[in-house]
Amino acid sequence: MIIVLRPHATPEQIEEVIKEVGILGYEPRPIHGAHQTVIAAIGDETTHHTLESLNVLPQVEGVLRVQKRFKLVSRESHPEDSVIDVDGVKIGGSQFVAMAGPCSVESEEQLLSTARAVKAAGASILRGGAYKPRTSPYEFQGLGREGLRLLDLARRETGLKIITEVLSERDVEHVAAATDILQIGARNAQNFRLLTEAARTGKAILLKRGMSERIEEWLLAAEYILAEGNSNVLFCERGIRTFETYTRNTLDLSAVAIAKKESHLPVIVDPSQGCGRADLVCALCRGAVAMGADGIIVEVHPNPAEAMSDGQQQVDFAGFDALMRDLDPLLAAVGRTR
Amino acid sequence: MIIVLRPHATPEQIEEVIKEVGILGYEPRPIHGAHQTVIAAIGDETTHHTLESLNVLPQVEGVLRVQKRFKLVSRESHPEDSVIDVDGVKIGGSQFVAMAGPCSVESEEQLLSTARAVKAAGASILRGGAYKPRTSPYEFQGLGREGLRLLDLARRETGLKIITEVLSERDVEHVAAATDILQIGARNAQNFRLLTEAARTGKAILLKRGMSERIEEWLLAAEYILAEGNSNVLFCERGIRTFETYTRNTLDLSAVAIAKKESHLPVIVDPSQGCGRADLVCALCRGAVAMGADGIIVEVHPNPAEAMSDGQQQVDFAGFDALMRDLDPLLAAVGRTR
Amino acid sequence: MIIVLRPHATPEQIEEVIKEVGILGYEPRPIHGAHQTVIAAIGDETTHHTLESLNVLPQVEGVLRVQKRFKLVSRESHPEDSVIDVDGVKIGGSQFVAMAGPCSVESEEQLLSTARAVKAAGASILRGGAYKPRTSPYEFQGLGREGLRLLDLARRETGLKIITEVLSERDVEHVAAATDILQIGARNAQNFRLLTEAARTGKAILLKRGMSERIEEWLLAAEYILAEGNSNVLFCERGIRTFETYTRNTLDLSAVAIAKKESHLPVIVDPSQGCGRADLVCALCRGAVAMGADGIIVEVHPNPAEAMSDGQQQVDFAGFDALMRDLDPLLAAVGRTR
Amino acid sequence: MIIVLRPHATPEQIEEVIKEVGILGYEPRPIHGAHQTVIAAIGDETTHHTLESLNVLPQVEGVLRVQKRFKLVSRESHPEDSVIDVDGVKIGGSQFVAMAGPCSVESEEQLLSTARAVKAAGASILRGGAYKPRTSPYEFQGLGREGLRLLDLARRETGLKIITEVLSERDVEHVAAATDILQIGARNAQNFRLLTEAARTGKAILLKRGMSERIEEWLLAAEYILAEGNSNVLFCERGIRTFETYTRNTLDLSAVAIAKKESHLPVIVDPSQGCGRADLVCALCRGAVAMGADGIIVEVHPNPAEAMSDGQQQVDFAGFDALMRDLDPLLAAVGRTR
Repeated sequence: MIIVLRPHATPEQIEEVIKEVGILGYEPRPIHGAHQTVIAAIGDETTHHTLESLNVLPQVEGVLRVQKRFKLVSRESHPEDSVIDVDGVKIGGSQFVAMAGPCSVESEEQLLSTARAVKAAGASILRGGAYKPRTSPYEFQGLGREGLRLLDLARRETGLKIITEVLSERDVEHVAAATDILQIGARNAQNFRLLTEAARTGKAILLKRGMSERIEEWLLAAEYILAEGNSNVLFCERGIRTFETYTRNTLDLSAVAIAKKESHLPVIVDPSQGCGRADLVCALCRGAVAMGADGIIVEVHPNPAEAMSDGQQQVDFAGFDALMRDLDPLLAAVGRTR
Repeated sequence: MIIVLRPHATPEQIEEVIKEVGILGYEPRPIHGAHQTVIAAIGDETTHHTLESLNVLPQVEGVLRVQKRFKLVSRESHPEDSVIDVDGVKIGGSQFVAMAGPCSVESEEQLLSTARAVKAAGASILRGGAYKPRTSPYEFQGLGREGLRLLDLARRETGLKIITEVLSERDVEHVAAATDILQIGARNAQNFRLLTEAARTGKAILLKRGMSERIEEWLLAAEYILAEGNSNVLFCERGIRTFETYTRNTLDLSAVAIAKKESHLPVIVDPSQGCGRADLVCALCRGAVAMGADGIIVEVHPNPAEAMSDGQQQVDFAGFDALMRDLDPLLAAVGRTR
Repeated sequence: MIIVLRPHATPEQIEEVIKEVGILGYEPRPIHGAHQTVIAAIGDETTHHTLESLNVLPQVEGVLRVQKRFKLVSRESHPEDSVIDVDGVKIGGSQFVAMAGPCSVESEEQLLSTARAVKAAGASILRGGAYKPRTSPYEFQGLGREGLRLLDLARRETGLKIITEVLSERDVEHVAAATDILQIGARNAQNFRLLTEAARTGKAILLKRGMSERIEEWLLAAEYILAEGNSNVLFCERGIRTFETYTRNTLDLSAVAIAKKESHLPVIVDPSQGCGRADLVCALCRGAVAMGADGIIVEVHPNPAEAMSDGQQQVDFAGFDALMRDLDPLLAAVGRTR
Repeated sequence: MIIVLRPHATPEQIEEVIKEVGILGYEPRPIHGAHQTVIAAIGDETTHHTLESLNVLPQVEGVLRVQKRFKLVSRESHPEDSVIDVDGVKIGGSQFVAMAGPCSVESEEQLLSTARAVKAAGASILRGGAYKPRTSPYEFQGLGREGLRLLDLARRETGLKIITEVLSERDVEHVAAATDILQIGARNAQNFRLLTEAARTGKAILLKRGMSERIEEWLLAAEYILAEGNSNVLFCERGIRTFETYTRNTLDLSAVAIAKKESHLPVIVDPSQGCGRADLVCALCRGAVAMGADGIIVEVHPNPAEAMSDGQQQVDFAGFDALMRDLDPLLAAVGRTR
């Protein structure tokens, strides 16, 4: 770490910082510059106490980290792309994966018809929420265990793999039993206890980026999962919260390129949450392909206007089919198959 | 709700929307304006299906809510200020409450010395983290149950009430046994399952605003707690995430005035998280008093430069004592006592 | 417009609002809902006084706009894509346009070598700043008129068209004489007097989105130009300011799709400003192509490490050549040529 | 500056950076750490070329500034508070200054009645917009020169000092002739040419913070004015743009404390723009006093519901009078008079 001292720090004040750096386990190396002194603190920042606390000293102007804080998720620790095998469906290699299905599981008829439609259009993984995190307690909260039963039924009927969100540590076990990929939603992006408990199932985990989560924090949240010995992590960019009101969120497609550069893990894009408007979903999927995403997760509903949650961002069967066909030339251009 | 149709919607398209409004349980009332038709949908928006899903229809330009989404937390449902009684300490009335203590409980010596110091300076509630949500898995995660034991010891020694954070549904029961107020942190601000489980203990709950949570969402998160029959909720403004880098967060003091206007529940301000810098804590407490906050929660440590977490935003004993004395004239000016 | 009254508004209060709506030139139509009254105000919102001022009345909960505020830039006013002809280079049709060149014009050698390199790689328009808006007064402010002379020289030598930024009304005339496209930068995105004066030259204008400008505001800023009778406007998405620190700005590629949907005018993407890092420029250009952009504007420098401004986001000649070749398969996939 | 190299940089790569640091005019001092090498570059960062361009080298992970970028505005260059004398009204000392008046000058009757009312309530400076920067070209743009004439009339009638916004370099001269303080609005916060030209008049300048301007950038924009030899600058915090929608902007009161700490110049708060709602203006003024602001600038209108611009955020005469009386106990508490 680098500790920057204020321009008029006295020799005694400089000495105090040097001593404190030593107490906290680093080797101090002062450098006297043109206007200010900086102290380089030599030591492994990921195992030592952080020196940011030194900011409380009046003679300290700032403390700058040098070392990256994430390890197991880093491209440096694993130079090759990781390919996650979800019961035969490979994510992160040359194949581009489409996950699709309703925002909420609403009924057997709704789920099975959607499963068949998205499979026909080329999806290999069925999404559907059984437990829904809703802003208001008066909104539809999902079918719960009955939803899981229906997802399992759809899996057996269609052969599609299943992804569904888990909201609670208390649900991890039975959700894991019914699904192939556990989804951690944006509101739980830094619910580290849920991440840890989900990690221990060994299942693949799709980790959405939090609404205002920096990319570094997103990588560090995944580090919690890898630190439990589970490296089957899929990052999912789903839009960040900004001042813009035309869209529900601002999809940060540069985060796809950055996550692929900093980490070896696959990156999925959620265009439905990413904009909150069905009419932009297809364009965002095109951007996702071009930016190097390994797959998409799209909300599809038989009749979005009457959906029990987030109808405004769900496409219908024809829309999803058109979207998938629209992506084909772009996939070819980037050397991907589906 | 109000459905705005696009300027060139055809009569058939308008009819389709009118019909759909009826199917979804509202009474449609079309109004033909100068350039566009709007349809007022009469019905209770908090019990009916939302009409936002109608945005998927190509002739719909937008859907606007009319009714407020929160009920039990609203000032309309309870015009008087609520006063929360925490085992004799009253929060929300004319008394201004100071909660103070270390970011993390580190040791018996550290906690007890801090407890005595903050009590002497005028605090009535001791804060201290036993379970810490840390951005990286390699950072200090808190003493856990040992931390709870020390908090309980400090309570018995000093008579201070205790507030500590709960991170996990699995911890709710034993954390509740050791504390007077359960704190829900910013990262769990919309962890609705944790909110619900914490609510059921009947304990007072301090609900921090999420990093990028709109005030409406914050009120709705509290609605989850009140809907469980627990109305002992304290809102806590702790800064929101913005582009500014001088401070760790941007403390939104206008949110204090807004929450007090929209809701009957008390509002506490956390200046330590709110700026992430010890040198600004006192100024922010002054602003909190002036804006009508019912209390503050301040991080205090015997030696911030060597704190095991967030030393840069903790004040020392002398600093906290000075801060409390600094607030007295302002408290008098706003008609509060402490 | 729609005026939403508070739940317990009295008949007299409702009458007051109805009367005020009439005074302000709209026809009021009250609708009495389940819990609240709303008043639809019939009239052309773009010619009448806004009713947002009614928010000051205590019985008014909110005022909602119905009509879009922009006219001439809207897709409704001009359903076909506009193609802007810049002295023979057509922007907005099937051809994808590459604008490239140094952040700042530094010298004849630097500019001419770059002009030749970007032309060879496929650019048709040369960018280069002669007047630079710099955060600090102590940073390089550009060569001014000498920079314009060099741009003109490069135009004559290479046949490339020129784009350069104009910072001041006082410079509009002589900058317009030396350039084919006037660039309005992000810091002047709502400098309406500069927009108006630039518009009057009749030159094509590239209008960058402001750092925290909503898309609606960006469209309305362009409306200032079209209202002067100049419809040669190119929108330029260059990233918005968010909490993310990995990149200098967050490039909002969804804004490309939205601007193309709401307006008939071409949209250009600036990946250099959009991320502030040379290593991400190529990936962002790929996303721009896929999302439907009509062109890119890329910073290119002979030796970025020694550039006099923003070296960190400039690619070198080999990098730009590789980038252009990298885009070819994607351009083919979206049916564009270059 | 500090250049951080990537963990696996080769000796040749390190040597390349060391050489480049020398070429760019700094003295390089390499420090070999536990995992990475950093190079301290000794030299005055405000006179030398920035080294941020070195980020383009693949072996460079980051470049960190050490020195502050602003000089003349800094507290270090001028440890005492600056007091700006506006024709006898002193801003920045123990007196708290109230500036008040309509958003737009609309008529002689409107302006004079407001001038008399705000003077009676305790304001010493009259605000009023003659040139208005409006989001849409179809909105009221201000009375222009006629507005300036009315402001001058109000000055002569009441003895109040005048503040009004200047939008254009072409207006600087005649606006300066009619006003005591030139206001630079948020949209022109980084319009450096306007700042420079306004500075040359020698008039006091109220510099609003841009909508998404970092505090450092705000200080550097003021540096442009001081670098012209005009040190009569008033900072004005007027809210920043965030995701929150309850208020038009998020007033950043911590910026008041920060600007007062980093700079010697006075800080004014604009609560009207800061929240965009008349009902919160008084609470925000209270916060401003407590946080150490040197004054407020408040929008006041005889009949806000019929104002020609921003009626929703203007208070009426009775409201302003109540607000001023409400501040008295707080002013006394912080040792200020008015």
